Amino acid sequence: MNFISLLTDFGLQDEYVGVMKAVIASINPAVRTIDITHQIEAQDIGQAAYVLKAAYRYFPPDTVHLAVVDPQVGGSRRIVAVKAGGYIFLGPDNGILCPAVEDTGEPQPEVVVVSNSGYFLPDVSRTFHGRDIFAPVAAHLTMGTSLGQLGPGIEFSKLVKPQALTVRRLADGSLQGIVIGVDHFGNILTNIERKCLVEMLKKENLNNLEIKISGWTLQGLGGSYADVAVGQPLALIGSRDTLELAVNHGQAADVLKAGPGDKVVVIVKKDG
Amino acid sequence: MNFISLLTDFGLQDEYVGVMKAVIASINPAVRTIDITHQIEAQDIGQAAYVLKAAYRYFPPDTVHLAVVDPQVGGSRRIVAVKAGGYIFLGPDNGILCPAVEDTGEPQPEVVVVSNSGYFLPDVSRTFHGRDIFAPVAAHLTMGTSLGQLGPGIEFSKLVKPQALTVRRLADGSLQGIVIGVDHFGNILTNIERKCLVEMLKKENLNNLEIKISGWTLQGLGGSYADVAVGQPLALIGSRDTLELAVNHGQAADVLKAGPGDKVVVIVKKDG
Amino acid sequence: MNFISLLTDFGLQDEYVGVMKAVIASINPAVRTIDITHQIEAQDIGQAAYVLKAAYRYFPPDTVHLAVVDPQVGGSRRIVAVKAGGYIFLGPDNGILCPAVEDTGEPQPEVVVVSNSGYFLPDVSRTFHGRDIFAPVAAHLTMGTSLGQLGPGIEFSKLVKPQALTVRRLADGSLQGIVIGVDHFGNILTNIERKCLVEMLKKENLNNLEIKISGWTLQGLGGSYADVAVGQPLALIGSRDTLELAVNHGQAADVLKAGPGDKVVVIVKKDG
Repeated sequence: MNFISLLTDFGLQDEYVGVMKAVIASINPAVRTIDITHQIEAQDIGQAAYVLKAAYRYFPPDTVHLAVVDPQVGGSRRIVAVKAGGYIFLGPDNGILCPAVEDTGEPQPEVVVVSNSGYFLPDVSRTFHGRDIFAPVAAHLTMGTSLGQLGPGIEFSKLVKPQALTVRRLADGSLQGIVIGVDHFGNILTNIERKCLVEMLKKENLNNLEIKISGWTLQGLGGSYADVAVGQPLALIGSRDTLELAVNHGQAADVLKAGPGDKVVVIVKKDG
Repeated sequence: MNFISLLTDFGLQDEYVGVMKAVIASINPAVRTIDITHQIEAQDIGQAAYVLKAAYRYFPPDTVHLAVVDPQVGGSRRIVAVKAGGYIFLGPDNGILCPAVEDTGEPQPEVVVVSNSGYFLPDVSRTFHGRDIFAPVAAHLTMGTSLGQLGPGIEFSKLVKPQALTVRRLADGSLQGIVIGVDHFGNILTNIERKCLVEMLKKENLNNLEIKISGWTLQGLGGSYADVAVGQPLALIGSRDTLELAVNHGQAADVLKAGPGDKVVVIVKKDG
Repeated sequence: MNFISLLTDFGLQDEYVGVMKAVIASINPAVRTIDITHQIEAQDIGQAAYVLKAAYRYFPPDTVHLAVVDPQVGGSRRIVAVKAGGYIFLGPDNGILCPAVEDTGEPQPEVVVVSNSGYFLPDVSRTFHGRDIFAPVAAHLTMGTSLGQLGPGIEFSKLVKPQALTVRRLADGSLQGIVIGVDHFGNILTNIERKCLVEMLKKENLNNLEIKISGWTLQGLGGSYADVAVGQPLALIGSRDTLELAVNHGQAADVLKAGPGDKVVVIVKKDG
């Protein structure tokens, strides 16, 4: 039983996603597809990379993770396949796959540039590689095609890296990250990972944290939304294992008036 | 061949639903999931309960119906599993399951409080029980895990009931219900069931009905949208077997200016 | 392994699509469904017909294509099933199936009027034939039920044709088509097919084309979005093999201020 996960910015209003699934089913009728989401903001590679990193590890071993946010489709960007952590990642070489691949901890990921058109549809358009290249290659990968058959190997370090969204340590010891998205519930998602906080705080008191965002200052980390009164904001480690700002029974993005790109600062107050 | 139905307020923009399906597939790769919807209004338990009641009976026997609208996730609310009508219902103990379970007519539903963490993911977050508890428990249920293995039994009568949306008989003999939702086509859905109307009307003339809503008065019940001219409103028994207000080729919610929470009154006019 | 494709205007907020899949699974648990889309504009038969035509051929042989955009549900319109091109098409007799069936090139499509209620659900509502008739008939078709068992045969030429969206040759030799939709990326989709352009241009210079839309004049056809600078519009043959207007990294519908129903004119300039 094999699985392909799908992550795109194609939306669900057109036939695009259905046609990709049709191409996959035509090549390997037994494979099953699971949508991660198709509602990545159009051409937002960074958002897609974070979502893939948050989701990939919950899939069965050997899943082919197909991620297509591809503003340069039809141009000169390469297509790459990467084997890491017991999964295969397939997508354009624009950084979309890198955070997930790095997260697997695989010491030497196997990487190829996908160029063997024997695994593509016979007619390749210049505007819809999702249908003509990505879907058929993903389907062939679930049937035993090896990475080496798809094209020449390259080193993982040679892939295009996504725009850096690094967390910075400021001179006063505080951490500065940014908001990378707002979810369906209005929760504000940041790029500050739990492990980053834990490292920073190993000798500190967790209750002495202050989180500053958009003119607000929140004290400490909560555990669940219900830790504060209805309508009140709190900071917590969310389900992606990153710092999240939420409002109990409310939309944090509305209440705190914060969104993608805004700065988030975590300050460790001195004891006593 | 086993099925899990999924009903949530998670939306489709984030990875949340895909990750739940990934967890299910990792435990039982052979199970199939069918989405009822993921677009329940955020935290609207009552709407979810009605949708589950409208949908559950069309699924194959032994389907596990997983319903997660869970504003108190991470708080003290319980998780329950109920066996009734040849199905298993799984969700938070907040009333979401009750209307469907009652609709099965099962005289003695088997109910347990889900507490055996051996069926959960190893790390349980306090914000995403859909992934960490509900999905893995649902998957195990499709593989033969019995309700008794999940936790201690309780009586169905002890479950939290949803906020009452009862239909009332007024002093003048008319029925008063409320609008519980507006569908994708703008049809106005009410909580007045066909059987309730039939009981009320058993000796009456169906054509002598008047339906009052939002300042409008509609005469009698139509059979299909095409029973009135294009753009005209009508009342009919809709596909959920409840009273529905519609406009032929139009959006009733816009035309009648009515929405969730508005009152609907059904009056039986005297013959003669 | 059998497949049913689903194309409707039901949206994803209600239980309607999930219930159709539940009915299908109850009759044939082994069949797999693939959504083409459920977000056709409400009651837009023409848009659905184009999407079906664009998508059907990518599906595995023997797929049952079920298309339900059905403004006259419960009225006197017929339901038809058509065998053509190795597929079965099932839908209301309102034109939705015709462009796809014609595109198969099948010389003598087998057509029946679906009337044998033995293949319907026991209770047929007058508002939701998707659940009560279309889904069960599609499921039975995947299990070997023949078209002849569903109802009497008729000739394909007797079916209702969709409102003509023909491309016209104007007196000056130019082609006039219309915009039939705008996709998720803001690309403007027209009804002018590549083969129509090729015929018109067989002795002409492709670079001498001019495309006029909404006050804009675009020169020639590009190959991919990246052929023009970011923010610039271009005309190209899109993934449906029809003339499309796009903007590199932008929304053509916003930039060109054009939408469904607008005229598009293709002019062949004289050489020299």
